Amino acid sequence: MKNTAILLIDCPDRKGLVAAISSFLYTHGANILHADQHQDNDLKLFFMRIEWALEEFDLDDASFRRLFQPIADRLEMRWRLEYSAARPAMAIFVSRQLHCLADLLFRQRAGELPCRIPLIVSNHEDAADLARFYGVEFHHVPVEASRKAEAEERQLELLARAPVDLVALARYMQVLSPRFVAAYEERIINVHHSFLPAFGGARPYHAAFERGVKLIGATSHYVTAALDDGPIIEQDVVRVSHRDQIEDLMQKGRDLERVVLSRAVKWRLENRILAYANKTVVFD
Amino acid sequence: MKNTAILLIDCPDRKGLVAAISSFLYTHGANILHADQHQDNDLKLFFMRIEWALEEFDLDDASFRRLFQPIADRLEMRWRLEYSAARPAMAIFVSRQLHCLADLLFRQRAGELPCRIPLIVSNHEDAADLARFYGVEFHHVPVEASRKAEAEERQLELLARAPVDLVALARYMQVLSPRFVAAYEERIINVHHSFLPAFGGARPYHAAFERGVKLIGATSHYVTAALDDGPIIEQDVVRVSHRDQIEDLMQKGRDLERVVLSRAVKWRLENRILAYANKTVVFD
Amino acid sequence: MKNTAILLIDCPDRKGLVAAISSFLYTHGANILHADQHQDNDLKLFFMRIEWALEEFDLDDASFRRLFQPIADRLEMRWRLEYSAARPAMAIFVSRQLHCLADLLFRQRAGELPCRIPLIVSNHEDAADLARFYGVEFHHVPVEASRKAEAEERQLELLARAPVDLVALARYMQVLSPRFVAAYEERIINVHHSFLPAFGGARPYHAAFERGVKLIGATSHYVTAALDDGPIIEQDVVRVSHRDQIEDLMQKGRDLERVVLSRAVKWRLENRILAYANKTVVFD
Amino acid sequence: MKNTAILLIDCPDRKGLVAAISSFLYTHGANILHADQHQDNDLKLFFMRIEWALEEFDLDDASFRRLFQPIADRLEMRWRLEYSAARPAMAIFVSRQLHCLADLLFRQRAGELPCRIPLIVSNHEDAADLARFYGVEFHHVPVEASRKAEAEERQLELLARAPVDLVALARYMQVLSPRFVAAYEERIINVHHSFLPAFGGARPYHAAFERGVKLIGATSHYVTAALDDGPIIEQDVVRVSHRDQIEDLMQKGRDLERVVLSRAVKWRLENRILAYANKTVVFD
Repeated sequence: MKNTAILLIDCPDRKGLVAAISSFLYTHGANILHADQHQDNDLKLFFMRIEWALEEFDLDDASFRRLFQPIADRLEMRWRLEYSAARPAMAIFVSRQLHCLADLLFRQRAGELPCRIPLIVSNHEDAADLARFYGVEFHHVPVEASRKAEAEERQLELLARAPVDLVALARYMQVLSPRFVAAYEERIINVHHSFLPAFGGARPYHAAFERGVKLIGATSHYVTAALDDGPIIEQDVVRVSHRDQIEDLMQKGRDLERVVLSRAVKWRLENRILAYANKTVVFD
Repeated sequence: MKNTAILLIDCPDRKGLVAAISSFLYTHGANILHADQHQDNDLKLFFMRIEWALEEFDLDDASFRRLFQPIADRLEMRWRLEYSAARPAMAIFVSRQLHCLADLLFRQRAGELPCRIPLIVSNHEDAADLARFYGVEFHHVPVEASRKAEAEERQLELLARAPVDLVALARYMQVLSPRFVAAYEERIINVHHSFLPAFGGARPYHAAFERGVKLIGATSHYVTAALDDGPIIEQDVVRVSHRDQIEDLMQKGRDLERVVLSRAVKWRLENRILAYANKTVVFD
Repeated sequence: MKNTAILLIDCPDRKGLVAAISSFLYTHGANILHADQHQDNDLKLFFMRIEWALEEFDLDDASFRRLFQPIADRLEMRWRLEYSAARPAMAIFVSRQLHCLADLLFRQRAGELPCRIPLIVSNHEDAADLARFYGVEFHHVPVEASRKAEAEERQLELLARAPVDLVALARYMQVLSPRFVAAYEERIINVHHSFLPAFGGARPYHAAFERGVKLIGATSHYVTAALDDGPIIEQDVVRVSHRDQIEDLMQKGRDLERVVLSRAVKWRLENRILAYANKTVVFD
Repeated sequence: MKNTAILLIDCPDRKGLVAAISSFLYTHGANILHADQHQDNDLKLFFMRIEWALEEFDLDDASFRRLFQPIADRLEMRWRLEYSAARPAMAIFVSRQLHCLADLLFRQRAGELPCRIPLIVSNHEDAADLARFYGVEFHHVPVEASRKAEAEERQLELLARAPVDLVALARYMQVLSPRFVAAYEERIINVHHSFLPAFGGARPYHAAFERGVKLIGATSHYVTAALDDGPIIEQDVVRVSHRDQIEDLMQKGRDLERVVLSRAVKWRLENRILAYANKTVVFD
């Protein structure tokens, strides 16, 4: 895979945005590989993801930043420049259920997830041998109700030391404090085992079973201070029937959780997600 | 299609239920075509649907009822005997959106729904010409907030006069009173335009759009006194993205609503549904 | 709905395409509402759909065509300019099964399909009363095996007289001749009642039943001279089980056929489809 | 999980089958937990799966077999008696792609698959370390085109020595000989990376890409002498678009393959599958 540049932009919508961006890139020899854009017509916002080959592009990273900034200033853009060859560092937090962890580790090794995984953190010991098999540093950080702040302190130290760009909560069953969340804004992805906003909170499979729904779901989302309420990145569902007991719901749900979390992580790593107004734009 | 008998049973679970029922039927020459059963192991309940050919069955309806009742009494069964050749009468209530109505009428005429449709009731006039085309009596019963009881009185008279066995709320946008609901317990099927329990109440597509979900759904359910909370019969979802505006959600949703309501109606007419504990068993 | 302009482009891929197009539009005051593009990296082709508001656009149709053509020539573009307020004329061909016809007629009247329907043609009489209800001219053109050319002659006359821009084959069970197809290239949309390429040809539900598949499908596609082999526009599937008899497959299939055909028609009418290399790009 | 007995029956359909079986079980104190049946009305065949608790059942395995056989003889039944506590031995064959293997191993260890996995066989070495991690014996059996019979001989020896009850082909890219297949009839489950019967044979993702389909699928099936033509156990699909390149199809497909193979294996291990007429009945 050749390296490519990816530019992510959001700004107030106005005329001439695409012309300005594409002309700038053309002037510097960019061969555009993908471009996608979105407008929110209510909020008058513009979003764009544009990816180009670097072979004949005549700007290096510093020059791009220097020359593009005036355009961005004029058009009030927020922007990020990323490279497909980058391998950001992702930590995985997990509790006792290991299916999402195992899935992410396997995918990373198989080349599906363009990242490094330097760190696994858990409030239990169960994940230690999987971590060892995949050669990932494992830290057991117990979380006692009365000493939660202390545990978070330790976790934040581990993340800072690595350092990591992204945290995947792979069925990590502890609520993170607003302070923790703020430190990694739009960089923590959780999987919730229900079709949010239905069945937020604890024991969603039990709640779904009680309510007698005919489909169960899973949701991956950015973590915000409000529990189970961050911008949704991906959701999926599977059919259940009266024959399915709670255990069946849980098992069917595990397959959803894996897929829904790994898609969100992959899209994040490919710089396809823009979050705004507690929603996401996912460029495909 | 030959006529068949369908026996629906629910009772406390105990040994020997299937043996008792199947032996009784065998003794009288029944050729069983389908049989399905379900146990709720928590509540210790047993549910069964059994369908047999009538050709060589040696009991007429009255004899069956007389001879089967002692068995039912002994085993504490609630039971219903139905016939596939029956054509129950179904009323359709509708407001201004006609897609579910048009769908039910077309399916009934095409032979997909084994029922008669003697009556369409609406708080608007829009459905009048569709009713005329399909040769169904149409009644415009306006519902003013201050005179709702009066309107319901009129509706109940119409239902009683027909009389009808079943009422389909095909995007009927008025809440029925507990009294109305009680008069047609487990005989009113509604379609709600969301994946319940998410987005109950009014304007679910707007709520879904606001929340930024990645799938939208529709739910058909028996109507109970608690709004949007009756036993769910069927649900389905379709994928949406940031590109979908509220109008797109509504249009995609209409396709779901049609399918989800018509399935529920069909299953009800085929005597496939048993409701208990605010859930449904749907024998397939 | 305000009128908008839609430009569809395909051409050899090269640098500067987006810059050229967007700069041209910006220069003339276009407020771009949607833009989407695609590259086929194997065939080195570029595809674009771009939609803009007309309020402040300073070119009328003729001026646009005159001024854009030199750019198109230089960049070897094939292009079409369309308007969202246009209401192209669509004929519907149907045989005895009316579910797709009824669906298209209802959607058109409900405002889902931006087109006129001036003409229904059938080799049977069954559709006559639906046509009358929706106020559409109906022509019964019997197709006898030995006099097929004659029937096509009559059909082509009807299409030419209307005239129509698009033909929807709504379960029309006759094969069209290559000559007919050539006269309406990329303008005839068929729905085939299987998940193509599985079960092409006649009686696909029987074939699916025989093979014991666990999902059945439907496919909408542009009609080409090769039977069931044109560019696929949309497909969908539904789960079946050993409990489903052929009649169940047919009924479940009808729901798929409706949705799959109506989506294709809608996308075509919204100018979202570009066909090439026997495939389609569907801009969403 | 308590041990339960599972009886699987197929026989010519006739009256009194359910009565005979359920009365026999009731007489001996069986508490039936699940029962499901199916009739093929064309072929006049009857299929049944019945599961009961053993606590108060008064027959041991040998007594059951002795007492039930006369009933089976009289009613021309083929039958199998299985126990939910049994842990059959399953071998896994794999080539270079490890996602299905990793998935089966993880599920088995997590308790989702009620089996032992004593043996992994591969024509490559890639799977060796996964096998080691999960503590499963690994055998590298190279398959050269000219010495295929020899390789199969070695494989059959390994299977016989274990011995194994079931073989899962987890993306094993070699065709097995009719002789091999015959030795494990209805005991070899393969996953094919397409929605069969579309795209049988080699390189189905390439074929799907060429054809421009809008959904891709995967199929698990019993292996028979005819390539990709055995009784289908499970299928699933996922949506693709013109944006998906062959690599995207492959990645999306891998998620399907995992799910579709693991479901088939699980259902087989739970004794839910009856195969006949090149189809399957899957009791759910």
